[in-house]
Amino acid sequence: MASHQLLVAPPQALLKPISVPQRLLLGPGPSNLAPRALAAGSLPLIGHMHKEMFQIMDEIKEGIQYVFQTRNPLTLAISGSGHCALEAALFNLLEPGDSFLVGANGVWGQRAADIGERIGARVHRMTKDAGSHHTLQEVEEGLAQHKPVLLFLTHGESSTGVLQPLDGYGELCHRYQCLLLVDSVASLGGAPLYMDQQGIDVLYSGAQKVLSAPPGTAPISFSDRARNKVYARKTKPFSFYLDLKWLANMWGCDGKPRVYHHTTPIVSLYSLRESLALIAEQGLENSWRQHREVTAYLHGRLQGLGLQLFVRDSAIRLPTVTTVAVPAGYDWRDIVSYVMDHFGIEITGGLGPSVGKVLRIGLLGYNATRENVDRVMEALKEALQRCPKKKL
Amino acid sequence: MASHQLLVAPPQALLKPISVPQRLLLGPGPSNLAPRALAAGSLPLIGHMHKEMFQIMDEIKEGIQYVFQTRNPLTLAISGSGHCALEAALFNLLEPGDSFLVGANGVWGQRAADIGERIGARVHRMTKDAGSHHTLQEVEEGLAQHKPVLLFLTHGESSTGVLQPLDGYGELCHRYQCLLLVDSVASLGGAPLYMDQQGIDVLYSGAQKVLSAPPGTAPISFSDRARNKVYARKTKPFSFYLDLKWLANMWGCDGKPRVYHHTTPIVSLYSLRESLALIAEQGLENSWRQHREVTAYLHGRLQGLGLQLFVRDSAIRLPTVTTVAVPAGYDWRDIVSYVMDHFGIEITGGLGPSVGKVLRIGLLGYNATRENVDRVMEALKEALQRCPKKKL
Ligand SMILES: Cc1ncc(COP(=O)(O)O)c(C=O)c1O
Ligand SMILES: Cc1ncc(COP(=O)(O)O)c(C=O)c1O
Repeated sequence: MASHQLLVAPPQALLKPISVPQRLLLGPGPSNLAPRALAAGSLPLIGHMHKEMFQIMDEIKEGIQYVFQTRNPLTLAISGSGHCALEAALFNLLEPGDSFLVGANGVWGQRAADIGERIGARVHRMTKDAGSHHTLQEVEEGLAQHKPVLLFLTHGESSTGVLQPLDGYGELCHRYQCLLLVDSVASLGGAPLYMDQQGIDVLYSGAQKVLSAPPGTAPISFSDRARNKVYARKTKPFSFYLDLKWLANMWGCDGKPRVYHHTTPIVSLYSLRESLALIAEQGLENSWRQHREVTAYLHGRLQGLGLQLFVRDSAIRLPTVTTVAVPAGYDWRDIVSYVMDHFGIEITGGLGPSVGKVLRIGLLGYNATRENVDRVMEALKEALQRCPKKKL
Repeated sequence: MASHQLLVAPPQALLKPISVPQRLLLGPGPSNLAPRALAAGSLPLIGHMHKEMFQIMDEIKEGIQYVFQTRNPLTLAISGSGHCALEAALFNLLEPGDSFLVGANGVWGQRAADIGERIGARVHRMTKDAGSHHTLQEVEEGLAQHKPVLLFLTHGESSTGVLQPLDGYGELCHRYQCLLLVDSVASLGGAPLYMDQQGIDVLYSGAQKVLSAPPGTAPISFSDRARNKVYARKTKPFSFYLDLKWLANMWGCDGKPRVYHHTTPIVSLYSLRESLALIAEQGLENSWRQHREVTAYLHGRLQGLGLQLFVRDSAIRLPTVTTVAVPAGYDWRDIVSYVMDHFGIEITGGLGPSVGKVLRIGLLGYNATRENVDRVMEALKEALQRCPKKKL
């Protein structure tokens, strides 16, 4: 055997204690953890194949069915972030050559299109300006023209602040033999959503927004229609980690004994379970109302300060993440830094098509309170007084 | 707007408190959390793009460089399990049509081959019996015959209990213009491993084994050779979530300002940081020695009880996960259940090619103590007395 020796020394930085500040997270996510979700982070570890873990997974499934308002048996949590859930949907639903129609009114549509192209789908973007939504008529034109097998829409377009209406879209898609995939990462629990009644075929979200759980798990559900397309695939999905047949088994959705697939993020699942329990206790409609009211209060306060909401049509403003036009003369970076440095509050700039145009303020789940609106408004007011203004 | 109503009620099961028992996890993983990794699970959340988080990610990078014994700048943690890291490696390194040689002496090689096939590589399996390893000569024959761009080997073959020697394999691969990819999920921190000195091009592991952190993050590192192949790709990898160029940026490996890619599992990264700090404090060689000594003690105790180690050649026995031949006349399920039900200790049966043949006992990281050996031996002894024996 060759003789080796340690050439890389223990890093000095790791010999100091970890340092994590307290922050009020009022950006587009993550949000601060609900105390109960936080407490779950220090429960003891059990095995991913223990019956108590299967019980927790079953409870998570039921909790997702509740917040999604679905009876789909094929409901589970992906072991990854929101993007990972998007890939789980696209990897399983699309085969190379499939026509894929994408509502592209912000960054999330761009990402869905990008992933679609990576896996060889024929991607058709319906591009719209940041701040607008996709009308039924526009979608029908896209369906008629491109005959897609799948349409992607973003319910809560957090890069632009738009709430995409969903009534009628599922029915329309089904008339054209198309499945409807909806991203509710930034809206779930914060805005009305009825998966079954709205005919949504695949719906996914994330743990770290309204659910106020740590990032790393992502609820997802498939209708029978979607399930049938997946199970009738001619090719295996590119990913084993996200192969729905394996995941369905591991989550007890296929009636067969569960077999090991991968090690699930056990502790993150504890927290997800707790955050779903919280919303079950509160009641979904109460959670929707809370977000609507608190965000309306924020909108009033912002307008009272003379600021412009980026989304003009009040009917399509997202009740979780608010986009505010960057006030004339300011650099958005100065404002964001001021609020962070002087108040320990996170708000962010834009993303994708909204970069440089907006500030984003999120009131998500546990953070959706009037007190937090007052705190961020105080910080914002001071930032506008103190940050340098360019001459216009 | 259509009028909808809640049709799915809040699940009863979620209205009860979460229930998680205390378990001693002596299977092949996960292991019990080190108290410091557990404590990190209740630190407050900060944003994935905050400078304090970048600091923690930098510390994780340095910690991984230390435990991998590498100076590769392209070192980071994947936001997923061990399988996810395997996919990250294969998705980025392989393009459709590439020749891929797989050491298939257990379940992990099978999985690497499966993923290789999913993404259109030409996969060549070097199949060997469970309990054996791949010799330099066999590998050279494979390299000469199949001219692969990539070879996959499993350092700690946890389904069979084999420790794959690694000296000379990197050099050999490079003579054949082949890159070497090594799975160290079950061995990292428990058995000597020198990424740079052994010429390993891509190395990955998991958080939930010797590191004793929660599952959900996976260390990975790429040599310059591997990096060059990835950056010279003609096609984009199928996955955006695992696209190395994006990940490299997000982990500060490319010298450019970091841009948002996906939301990292922030809390799991806190724990990973703490578990790397623990091993940095202990010293890698001490950790290797601890596993070698404690597992040798286990082996002695097992043999003292008249049990047979599944791996005959003591030179290639894994010092983290031990495979014991199922004693004649017993059903392995009875033994595993007895130990769980009467002692709250997890040990498991086989996996893949070793199902029905072995029991697996893991002594991983925080759990690698003589006291735990004594506890599991007491449980096992009683199980062998009490479990039914078939007539032979
Ligand atoms: C609407 C929407 N979709 C998808 C994502 C991506 O989620 P993640 O960052 O968890 O990958 C986000 C995250 O901000 C989002 O707001
Ligand atoms: C050697 C080896 N490789 C890969 C894996 C897969 O890791 P995960 O279950 O985290 O996906 C394991 C897990 O047991 C393992 O032991």
